[in-house]
Amino acid sequence: MPKPLILITNDDGISAPGIRKLIKLMRNLGDVVVVAPEGPQSAMSHAITIKYPLVYKEIEITADYKEYSLNGTPVDCIKFGLHRLLDRKPDLVVSGINHGSNASINIIYSGTMGAALEGAMGEIPAIGFSILDYNNDADFSHSEDYILKIASQVLKDGLETGIALNVNFPKVIQGEKYKGLKVCRQSKAYWKEDFAERTDPRNGKPYFWLTGTFTINEDDNTTDEWALENHYVSVVPVQFDFTAYKQIEKLKNWEKDV
Amino acid sequence: MPKPLILITNDDGISAPGIRKLIKLMRNLGDVVVVAPEGPQSAMSHAITIKYPLVYKEIEITADYKEYSLNGTPVDCIKFGLHRLLDRKPDLVVSGINHGSNASINIIYSGTMGAALEGAMGEIPAIGFSILDYNNDADFSHSEDYILKIASQVLKDGLETGIALNVNFPKVIQGEKYKGLKVCRQSKAYWKEDFAERTDPRNGKPYFWLTGTFTINEDDNTTDEWALENHYVSVVPVQFDFTAYKQIEKLKNWEKDV
Repeated sequence: MPKPLILITNDDGISAPGIRKLIKLMRNLGDVVVVAPEGPQSAMSHAITIKYPLVYKEIEITADYKEYSLNGTPVDCIKFGLHRLLDRKPDLVVSGINHGSNASINIIYSGTMGAALEGAMGEIPAIGFSILDYNNDADFSHSEDYILKIASQVLKDGLETGIALNVNFPKVIQGEKYKGLKVCRQSKAYWKEDFAERTDPRNGKPYFWLTGTFTINEDDNTTDEWALENHYVSVVPVQFDFTAYKQIEKLKNWEKDV
Repeated sequence: MPKPLILITNDDGISAPGIRKLIKLMRNLGDVVVVAPEGPQSAMSHAITIKYPLVYKEIEITADYKEYSLNGTPVDCIKFGLHRLLDRKPDLVVSGINHGSNASINIIYSGTMGAALEGAMGEIPAIGFSILDYNNDADFSHSEDYILKIASQVLKDGLETGIALNVNFPKVIQGEKYKGLKVCRQSKAYWKEDFAERTDPRNGKPYFWLTGTFTINEDDNTTDEWALENHYVSVVPVQFDFTAYKQIEKLKNWEKDV
């Protein structure tokens, strides 16, 4: 029996510590193909590249390991991997480990989760992994076992068609193990935006950096934010149908009135 | 009573015919502020700009009309409009008219719908308008009445918090009126990808353009693709919670086993 084939990407770029750790872990579980952005692609959501062409580079090619960089977004990496670089459909798509949270509403901005959802759209079981630690030297030591167990479980049983997992790890607190894993729903939260203003020294004109404060709207132990706050690993099963089904009936009278 | 305040953006860029038409229509309904990308931002999904700072330009400023361009994505335009340029919360966010379909799975790639969803995330009723016609001289004449009626209806009654509308118009067929409006769910469909290969004349290396064939998985008269195929205007109420609720119970045993 051939070993499982695992396609890996991320949004922090191919040299980020998070993806290097994920590659190392996944090589214990199967043959690995990495197709990752050549540089940072954070906050690229589900964007795809249509204004310029894609160019890839071979980084390392061996019998059981292939690594490519691409001048595109995380979703481009999945599309290009699936339809150009791989010779068969992978058994698993994994994305990450992202440096920074993709819990709650962060999923909608996330390139890491864009890539995982693109895998699910291709009917491949897919997982995005993220840790609530932006540091380049984030401590992944407590996450490793969970990543191996979750990926093994998904390789064994699959996921329903069109489903991906959004897995987030709390920032490591010295001497405290994660309390376990919680299967959660996406928290209701938002970014309270602000824009930091600076002045261009060349022309005196203002320019702006997007900043903001993450604001949670609820206190409920079924959410990913509750799990992470309480030092659990959060797992949210996610999908890509945006329909607000309850609203369809409510708006049906528009078919006559509008 | 002050007139309603309407914030407008798009993803084809501030000079696209679609947004110029939408601006003209919305000025019949209220005071208008336009904050739109200075150039094309198609397929930017929910991306935000964090690698470089944002700079805006004043295009036109009068008592009841303000127009700005921004060097960012459609979602940036909404955030920057709401938190920097407007002095009060708008009553409506509209995005479009997009040149090209945002029905079905196209919503996940769409900058137009990213902007509309960002409005809904800010608890503002929001509508994305798109027409299934990529041409720069797309015929909007049949859409105008629908746009005015739908926007008026939403200004009058609002939408539930966190809901946006994804409105798509069929391409105009000479002499055939739209048959009416259908409130629909998002079709199950996907892009069967391909990559067109070209050769760089400078170094002989290959580069790739993303192409693909839109493929619908179902034939069901409750979907947006059915409505559009049958020359109806499709209206899908959409939301931004990605949770696959039915999967939560199924994965609950992981809390013990993984």
